[in-house]
Amino acid sequence: MTNSGVPAPVAKRQIVVASNRGPVAFVRDPDGQVVARRGGGGLVSALSGALQASGGLWIASAMSPEDRERAGGVHLDPAMGAAGHDLRYLSFDPRMYDRFYNGISNRVLWFVHHALWDLPRMPRWDRATDRAWASYRRVNEEFAEALAEEDAPTKAEPAYLVQDYHLSLVPALLRARRPNARIAHFSHIPFADPEAFRTLPAAMRIELLSGLLGADVVGFHSERWAENFMRCCHDLPGATVNLRDRSVRWHGRRVLVRLYPISVDPAALKEQAASEEVAAAERRIGRWLGGARLVLRVDRTDLSKNILRGFLAFEGFLLRNRRWRGRAKHLALLNPSRESVPEYRGYVKDCLRTAERINAELGDERWQPIRVQVQDDYSSALAGFGIYDVLLVNPVRDGMNLVAKEGAVLNTRDGVVVLSENAGAYPELRPHVLAVNPFDVGATAEAIATVLDMDADERRRRAGGTREAVVRNRLEDWVPSQLADLEMVTHDR
Amino acid sequence: MTNSGVPAPVAKRQIVVASNRGPVAFVRDPDGQVVARRGGGGLVSALSGALQASGGLWIASAMSPEDRERAGGVHLDPAMGAAGHDLRYLSFDPRMYDRFYNGISNRVLWFVHHALWDLPRMPRWDRATDRAWASYRRVNEEFAEALAEEDAPTKAEPAYLVQDYHLSLVPALLRARRPNARIAHFSHIPFADPEAFRTLPAAMRIELLSGLLGADVVGFHSERWAENFMRCCHDLPGATVNLRDRSVRWHGRRVLVRLYPISVDPAALKEQAASEEVAAAERRIGRWLGGARLVLRVDRTDLSKNILRGFLAFEGFLLRNRRWRGRAKHLALLNPSRESVPEYRGYVKDCLRTAERINAELGDERWQPIRVQVQDDYSSALAGFGIYDVLLVNPVRDGMNLVAKEGAVLNTRDGVVVLSENAGAYPELRPHVLAVNPFDVGATAEAIATVLDMDADERRRRAGGTREAVVRNRLEDWVPSQLADLEMVTHDR
Repeated sequence: MTNSGVPAPVAKRQIVVASNRGPVAFVRDPDGQVVARRGGGGLVSALSGALQASGGLWIASAMSPEDRERAGGVHLDPAMGAAGHDLRYLSFDPRMYDRFYNGISNRVLWFVHHALWDLPRMPRWDRATDRAWASYRRVNEEFAEALAEEDAPTKAEPAYLVQDYHLSLVPALLRARRPNARIAHFSHIPFADPEAFRTLPAAMRIELLSGLLGADVVGFHSERWAENFMRCCHDLPGATVNLRDRSVRWHGRRVLVRLYPISVDPAALKEQAASEEVAAAERRIGRWLGGARLVLRVDRTDLSKNILRGFLAFEGFLLRNRRWRGRAKHLALLNPSRESVPEYRGYVKDCLRTAERINAELGDERWQPIRVQVQDDYSSALAGFGIYDVLLVNPVRDGMNLVAKEGAVLNTRDGVVVLSENAGAYPELRPHVLAVNPFDVGATAEAIATVLDMDADERRRRAGGTREAVVRNRLEDWVPSQLADLEMVTHDR
Repeated sequence: MTNSGVPAPVAKRQIVVASNRGPVAFVRDPDGQVVARRGGGGLVSALSGALQASGGLWIASAMSPEDRERAGGVHLDPAMGAAGHDLRYLSFDPRMYDRFYNGISNRVLWFVHHALWDLPRMPRWDRATDRAWASYRRVNEEFAEALAEEDAPTKAEPAYLVQDYHLSLVPALLRARRPNARIAHFSHIPFADPEAFRTLPAAMRIELLSGLLGADVVGFHSERWAENFMRCCHDLPGATVNLRDRSVRWHGRRVLVRLYPISVDPAALKEQAASEEVAAAERRIGRWLGGARLVLRVDRTDLSKNILRGFLAFEGFLLRNRRWRGRAKHLALLNPSRESVPEYRGYVKDCLRTAERINAELGDERWQPIRVQVQDDYSSALAGFGIYDVLLVNPVRDGMNLVAKEGAVLNTRDGVVVLSENAGAYPELRPHVLAVNPFDVGATAEAIATVLDMDADERRRRAGGTREAVVRNRLEDWVPSQLADLEMVTHDR
């Protein structure tokens, strides 16, 4: 899936990472002391590890007032939990940042790439869109400006790793300032197909595509998103797409479109899962379960995660499999997300109401089939991963989905993943999971029953297969394979 | 856009048309007499004209109790307003028909091909879907059965023209019964792109594609829908797609994918528009206008027609162009449609509420900016076509859209069409209309202002250009060009 080789120059070249959210957030603890809190997830590990090796720099948006105080730049001490590398925060006018982050990134780009709009009603482009887009462009420009400073004549030529849909315009804006820069962009989310992409105003479409094509390497988690991107480029005047060798000719350069499906760090996960908090959470969940089988969901409260259909599928499973009533429970650990977006608030309300209805209709005093917890509680998530029988991962669309991978690594009960075909993780885990069309509530209900009725051998085989597929894809290779492609395509420059 | 030539054998071969809705509906008039009422629109004219020439047969679903009484078959007298050809109604169990028509055709296929779902919530496949799909297949089988009877050894080999998304499975089901049949299928609506198509259950997807590929010629109004169809076929095991010559190799046959953008019958339209009812409607509209400029919309109350954003665009136009307040009015003539579908009822309610709000906020006692009429009133539509200054045709997605063409033919005031880029009519009319991204409320508002402020020369040029483009594409050629392609591709059989 990725090109290997050319590792020699990679370690020598300085890496500069740009992302909206930085690897640590500075916050004030209850005593008023400013403390650095490390961001979770494999991405930070992968990028920090590479930065530590190269002695690089991470540029990010200041999110908290405490971040903003440090906007000048700091060196992160490895003892702080982050790798030893520099970190620079860019501080933006709060209203401009809101239009960049909520106005465009979360409410336009996230929606279009995940196909979340109710198209007869939304979106509605108007002058507010133009203003928000100008702010998005402005934030991207400030990132490009800051990045360009790292490629001054006095410094070594760095490799730029630009992260995600917040910074879609950065590659072209940086290239305009440093024509010979080595730039990779990686999208952690899906990419819209051409029909959905046409929903956007024409000028925005052109800027987004030419923004990304400013990079030398455009990376995605999965072939589907890469293909969608290339098909969208088909409609871009001046771009020549070669679907076969996955490249786009643009402004005289060859832009590689490549797949780098990210993985998780099994050792780090196991270490986290070994904590006392997680053990306590496991005991809590165990008491609630009371011997019932556990159907688990761990998600942000996102429109794309398909929580509602998940509840309906569990209901359908109970309706059609009376023998499982009282003997299976569904735990939904939901991390609150984007509560300022009206569509999200309405969706969470509908999810909670549906769970209540199902509990009222099917439950009794001793057995409530669904428990929903809306709170940031990673300890319970890790505890749940250890003991699920079924892990329900049914997103409408998902760039990758690391819940499926984290769960598979930590599970100790031969639990099986029910996985959406529309998750970026699907091609990797396909032989081992039970695949579902996420819109198919009936088939999802059936998949839950299939897993719970599955014989021990098959469960063990599937759980082991999923775990091995995850472990085989090493997180440590994720950055180096991008750097290798970047060296390769810029070799003749 | 279409292949010409090979006309000689065409007239000789009997034509058999299959469509859900027939060319006439038998209904009981107020006196209790059964009368035949001819269906409107260019499609009936085009097909009836061809049938009359070939002496063929039209097979359709019985829709009314009176239709059902005639399920045996009748010969339509040209004097009845229909061309002289045979007509056979197929009568179905009402519950089965409801699942075929509302359950699948209108609530699944119409939605997927027009991208109308709010995907985080709908659709939800379950056992009811399976039952509805079985009914859809059954109705398609009965059509195929009836069509196969027309290709008996004692008869001449006919050319089958199967119409629209209701009968997607008929080509393959007919081919299974008559392997050498000459079959063309035509979709009057868009075709979903591959990402949207994947929303459907896998089995349904395979049946739909292989159903259509049972034909020798698969026709669409516009290149975009043809391409989407071919890209969906890419994912069908066993199908080999050739995008360049627009064909699909399937089961040893070459299936042509072709464009036949339908037109309207200018002479017939003008005749209808010359009636006393239309003159009376024109006087009524004129009194209501009171000298104001007319921004007209004529549509079914369909989720795909984008009525809501049309109202918001007219509001935006008035907000930004105070000089037009009191001097422009928006008339929305809406033909009620699919009132049994909850999404449609909610949408119409929202449209009406929005129009009321705009009238309350911007209007006064002498001037109410928007008038909405929800009723089947073709006379008013024809009258409106004659006198609009702006014809707003902004569908979210539309197979063709004949309103734009009918309006252009009948307008006498150099009115200009504001046309959605997502209408099948767009490529034909593009040089003459003002194009809008239908999601761009701001740009639509601007387009209305641009037309109303346009100088007389440009208006005349655009109105004339649109009219000529419509007239140039002759409705009479629509069936013959399909028949010619059908002869060509089946020539060696």
